[in-house]
Amino acid sequence: MNDVIDVMLAHRSIRTYTDEVVPDVDIKAAVAAGQKASTSSNIQTYSLVHVTDSAKREAFIEISGGQEKVRDCGAFFVVCGDMRRHRLLAERCGSNCEENVESFLLSVIDASLFAQNMALAFESMGWGTCFIGGIRNDLNAVQALLDLPQSVAPLFGMTVGRAAEEPWPRPRFPVDTIIHENGVVADDDVLGQCDAYDELMKGYYLQRGASGRTWCGQMERFFEQPKRPHLLAFFESTGVRWR
Amino acid sequence: MNDVIDVMLAHRSIRTYTDEVVPDVDIKAAVAAGQKASTSSNIQTYSLVHVTDSAKREAFIEISGGQEKVRDCGAFFVVCGDMRRHRLLAERCGSNCEENVESFLLSVIDASLFAQNMALAFESMGWGTCFIGGIRNDLNAVQALLDLPQSVAPLFGMTVGRAAEEPWPRPRFPVDTIIHENGVVADDDVLGQCDAYDELMKGYYLQRGASGRTWCGQMERFFEQPKRPHLLAFFESTGVRWR
Repeated sequence: MNDVIDVMLAHRSIRTYTDEVVPDVDIKAAVAAGQKASTSSNIQTYSLVHVTDSAKREAFIEISGGQEKVRDCGAFFVVCGDMRRHRLLAERCGSNCEENVESFLLSVIDASLFAQNMALAFESMGWGTCFIGGIRNDLNAVQALLDLPQSVAPLFGMTVGRAAEEPWPRPRFPVDTIIHENGVVADDDVLGQCDAYDELMKGYYLQRGASGRTWCGQMERFFEQPKRPHLLAFFESTGVRWR
Repeated sequence: MNDVIDVMLAHRSIRTYTDEVVPDVDIKAAVAAGQKASTSSNIQTYSLVHVTDSAKREAFIEISGGQEKVRDCGAFFVVCGDMRRHRLLAERCGSNCEENVESFLLSVIDASLFAQNMALAFESMGWGTCFIGGIRNDLNAVQALLDLPQSVAPLFGMTVGRAAEEPWPRPRFPVDTIIHENGVVADDDVLGQCDAYDELMKGYYLQRGASGRTWCGQMERFFEQPKRPHLLAFFESTGVRWR
């Protein structure tokens, strides 16, 4: 199609890396390109922590449930929602900065748009990437480890580095499962789409040596228990008022 | 640098469009490329509504505070977090689907990574884009207009079309304001960075005929009142348990 779409279509997360370090010039290029993503009213409510300290990297392995790629990758980042600039500016002029569901959404969306551009920029330079949601296993620990102040909330990590594996791309839903016209499909059709997707996924699971697995089977109990229940209180402690 | 980064660096939101319609082939290509963005554990918790109905487009102008580009653009989309597939799969097997802060975060991040890839894919094909956060002025109205069921939550809109303007790109923070090593900077340094950014922004505001304006001045009262306070109850009504 074109080079941009080709890089998107070639995406697969990289979970095994060589020991090649990502040079600063590539990091700055990817961050600057990431920042050009849209940001609501130019508020830019995010910050990026580049974790270079090896003891901290080890701690992140434990927080994220034993993901050794956090140590082994060429660069490890923590993407944060950051409302601190706005809070400090408000405090300086005697005003308020009310953090609520909307400001939380703004910072998560802003940070995610930035991060996706940054990840794709790294991939366009030949690096592999993986988002590390596992840091949300314990955001209090992340906050302490990085000494994060009020109004700065870690959201997810990202490993970047030279791929030492060549994984199969995971098939996504067919386009027609995602896109709807003027509304969405009925519940029964949703289940049919999920079952149809499992047919698509058979080859992928077979190649991974997990021939009995299905996407529906993975997902039907995925949210059986409330996940990471500490997050409500954690984000409240950073300043978000849920009430 | 390379074609991918060049398209990122050329980004500016487009708010005035010609009447050229975006063809389906380009929409499907952008959505498929968007879907290749990372998604946590391949859960793919998002859906896209392509709003083609002209009465609905008119209603979105009103919801989003008079943004006529919603009518005038070549294609208008609503990006939704979508936990319905998981809920229906859980219900089918007699399990639960617990929607909480973590599942909300997962769906917002997934949807945003998808949307940023999609926007950039459109831009790589020569189309202009603009994210429309203004639909969050009244998500109950959006829900009614698109007849959205439980567990499907509209997050933001996106206009796509042929640019009928050539706006200046808005400067972002310098890279060093965003990226930090092993922690973040002190409060005093944050305020210094904000003031320094205003120097960068002077030329931009001058060019826009708003020479007295500053970024700090815009931001210091931006969150003075809680924004869109209905969102807490709205997302709760879609299934999110904040407690």
